[in-house]
Amino acid sequence: MAKLTSRAEDYSKWYNELVVKADLAENSGVRGCMVIKPYGYAIWEKMRDQMDKRFKETGHENAYFPIFIPKSLFEAEEKNAEGFAKECAVVTHYRLKTDPENPKKLIVDPEAKLEEELIVRPTSEAIIWNTYKNWIQSYRDLPILINQWANVVRWEMRTRLFLRTAEFLWQEGHTAHATKEEAVEETEKMLDVYADFAENFMAIPVIRGIKTPSERFAGADETYCIEALMQDGKALQAGTSHFLGQNFGKAFDVKFTNREGKIEHAWGTSWGTSTRLMGALIMTHSDDFGLVLPPTLAPIQVVIVPIFKGEEQLQQIDEVASDLQQKLKAKGISVKYDNRTENKPGWKFAEYELKGVPVRVAIGARDLENKTVEIARRDNLTKETQPIENLEVYIEQLLETIQKDIFQKALNHRAEHTTKVNTYEEFKKVLEEKGGFISAHWDGTAEEEEQIKNETKATIRCIPLDNPQEDGISLISGKPSKQRVIFAKSY
Amino acid sequence: MAKLTSRAEDYSKWYNELVVKADLAENSGVRGCMVIKPYGYAIWEKMRDQMDKRFKETGHENAYFPIFIPKSLFEAEEKNAEGFAKECAVVTHYRLKTDPENPKKLIVDPEAKLEEELIVRPTSEAIIWNTYKNWIQSYRDLPILINQWANVVRWEMRTRLFLRTAEFLWQEGHTAHATKEEAVEETEKMLDVYADFAENFMAIPVIRGIKTPSERFAGADETYCIEALMQDGKALQAGTSHFLGQNFGKAFDVKFTNREGKIEHAWGTSWGTSTRLMGALIMTHSDDFGLVLPPTLAPIQVVIVPIFKGEEQLQQIDEVASDLQQKLKAKGISVKYDNRTENKPGWKFAEYELKGVPVRVAIGARDLENKTVEIARRDNLTKETQPIENLEVYIEQLLETIQKDIFQKALNHRAEHTTKVNTYEEFKKVLEEKGGFISAHWDGTAEEEEQIKNETKATIRCIPLDNPQEDGISLISGKPSKQRVIFAKSY
Repeated sequence: MAKLTSRAEDYSKWYNELVVKADLAENSGVRGCMVIKPYGYAIWEKMRDQMDKRFKETGHENAYFPIFIPKSLFEAEEKNAEGFAKECAVVTHYRLKTDPENPKKLIVDPEAKLEEELIVRPTSEAIIWNTYKNWIQSYRDLPILINQWANVVRWEMRTRLFLRTAEFLWQEGHTAHATKEEAVEETEKMLDVYADFAENFMAIPVIRGIKTPSERFAGADETYCIEALMQDGKALQAGTSHFLGQNFGKAFDVKFTNREGKIEHAWGTSWGTSTRLMGALIMTHSDDFGLVLPPTLAPIQVVIVPIFKGEEQLQQIDEVASDLQQKLKAKGISVKYDNRTENKPGWKFAEYELKGVPVRVAIGARDLENKTVEIARRDNLTKETQPIENLEVYIEQLLETIQKDIFQKALNHRAEHTTKVNTYEEFKKVLEEKGGFISAHWDGTAEEEEQIKNETKATIRCIPLDNPQEDGISLISGKPSKQRVIFAKSY
Repeated sequence: MAKLTSRAEDYSKWYNELVVKADLAENSGVRGCMVIKPYGYAIWEKMRDQMDKRFKETGHENAYFPIFIPKSLFEAEEKNAEGFAKECAVVTHYRLKTDPENPKKLIVDPEAKLEEELIVRPTSEAIIWNTYKNWIQSYRDLPILINQWANVVRWEMRTRLFLRTAEFLWQEGHTAHATKEEAVEETEKMLDVYADFAENFMAIPVIRGIKTPSERFAGADETYCIEALMQDGKALQAGTSHFLGQNFGKAFDVKFTNREGKIEHAWGTSWGTSTRLMGALIMTHSDDFGLVLPPTLAPIQVVIVPIFKGEEQLQQIDEVASDLQQKLKAKGISVKYDNRTENKPGWKFAEYELKGVPVRVAIGARDLENKTVEIARRDNLTKETQPIENLEVYIEQLLETIQKDIFQKALNHRAEHTTKVNTYEEFKKVLEEKGGFISAHWDGTAEEEEQIKNETKATIRCIPLDNPQEDGISLISGKPSKQRVIFAKSY
């Protein structure tokens, strides 16, 4: 097994190699589309199930809406249409026929042209609000709290596995409310659900904040986000929650009679996370040896590897391992015993390090004598000897410790790579030398934001929600500012 | 709430009304595509989770492949391509632009034409086998046992909610094997998984069988199926499992070195079930009052309805109901207490009958005195009085009884509507007067099959797997036949 390119050498190459070698995903024969391989999909399934549970606990139901959006519906909400028109896949025909010049080839049948083109959904507000129109007549029909798990397509020109692909998997929540207050509350609630999920399940620390107008979702009045910091000092937007105002209510004529008997347009929210989170997971925790997975997300949490000479030793170890396996399984811990004889222990060690299995248990001949095992932690690469007695209890606690430690490590990294600056010179210096989150004053104009972006490639990631008020001077215009915002280069 | 059209009056209308009124699904603004509403999706989720569990138990893993298939890959396996070319959605462009004649409208950007058209997957053999090519070099890489949960698109001209829609949700298993025997074994194993799921989870009796060559999946050497009988005497194909031979292995040049060191093409299977199963569920069990759901699939298994006059009575019932709710939940039974005051009990009874809630518990003032409740079964519409003490134990057993009774009822219906015939006259008479499965001799030719289909609209649903050998004379040609096959009109 060839070693990974190190992060220091080429971070981007390290990432791509890791995704492929750890069997998470690979590029497909279709431009910009990926194949999510079983190991990667198993991790995504855990993320999906956990989010789904949290959505249901907060009162949401799943539903499914068509993948196609007729062009006339697509263009109804102008800003949304404008935002996605430049990168959408368009279905124009519904049949192929045999090529008259080559009977082994197929061509598009010109007689099967659609009267109206269909857009493959890049996001589903249009088709969903067009449906809600028929579901909402009275305030009694509200709120509608629906989530959808689906695939979407955005025709990105430069793609990278998980981070930016033409097709990706996601969930999109779409809710309708009787009042502005309720819709804002929902937007914020779902942001909190995302932040809690990212931190307490994925072990990824995030900043909750609000996007500037220029970074808003097309069609939203306000976009909330969670922003994570990767190991290379770049930011990654890990989830967004949009307050849509009455924009879609008006565009799709979704009206209802309110408690006072007056006709109003419904208020909306939408919120989403995607397989992009896989990229955030990889780039937050992993190292030069491969994946580092928080135990919550690891398809295999513990691997047992026998170190043996000859059949007899292996049989003795098999017995001990089988007992341990049963005890771990009884505690709900997923465990694999790899007693294949065609690969050597060293090869197996490297393999499970690459795959990010949190805990490795090695059992050798001397361990049998001493009634011990060797425990190796994937996250910090430490090893220790532990008695085999009550090992399942020790491992259960160790998995919890690892989960906490991984989060703390990422939190420390973020703290070390978050810098307050007060001048543009300082800003550029920090961005160049260290990267990370830069906390600075901004004059609130699109002009200053744009100039900084053009000159440094850094964007305002968000205006943090829990932001202390502080008098300051903005970076370029020197205008007074009341609070700092977070800048960074980003994925 | 307006009554449903009865099945006797107009079966087809009954079905459509039921799907919409029970909040399962509705037509969307996109031709032939449906919206699966939360209540319908909750049932589908239970089916999906249960199937997923069974796939994993039999060694399969989930993965995800692109929704698009480049035309050149699509046409690689000729029969498969021919089978789906006439009904596929084709993406030809990747961008819209503002209409120069109307700035509020968008048009397809002629400059954003794809070099190669992309087909929205009607099934994924092509894209998956094109991927397997890179995964398979040696017999050690086999078998590959992968399943995918996805949406697919087939441009059907006549669509019906769940039964036939342009887009539907499904799972598609795609496996690759080193030997023919292993691939055939997999094909049969998955058919058994489907049959077991249909009968023991969905309470739908099915016949396991093999399709005739003319009814085979395009690209398969053999198609196995499970066939269910609906209440109107029509058959519904509820799942298929295909032995693909080396067809895709050859078309996509998937070769491996076998144990003997020789190069061979891989052997394949594919197998699928879809949201069409929702149609089978509805049409197998439901009645003129609405849905009848087997307890395994009911989003709400028990509903408690208070019958009260005044606030004080309601409060007393609330207490009893709340206690019962907790006890049922502790047993893993999903329960809803509907103490809304804006709707009368009769309205609620009709609503939960429509939605197919298996058990209704009504609690009135007299019940409080007698420490009893009224239990109503949705499946056979019977009512009885039961003591409130240990009611959770009674209900738990009742749910199991209902599950069995629903299956037995469907089994009886099928037995009553399965007829052996020996002449074509008899065949036509039974088909006309009674419908159902007709067991008859067939000469094994496509000609006889075709003639029967053209003259009666009945097709051979399958050659049953557990088929007794029996000498007979075929219906039209009068040629000798060794076994009966199952004919029916179908969905």
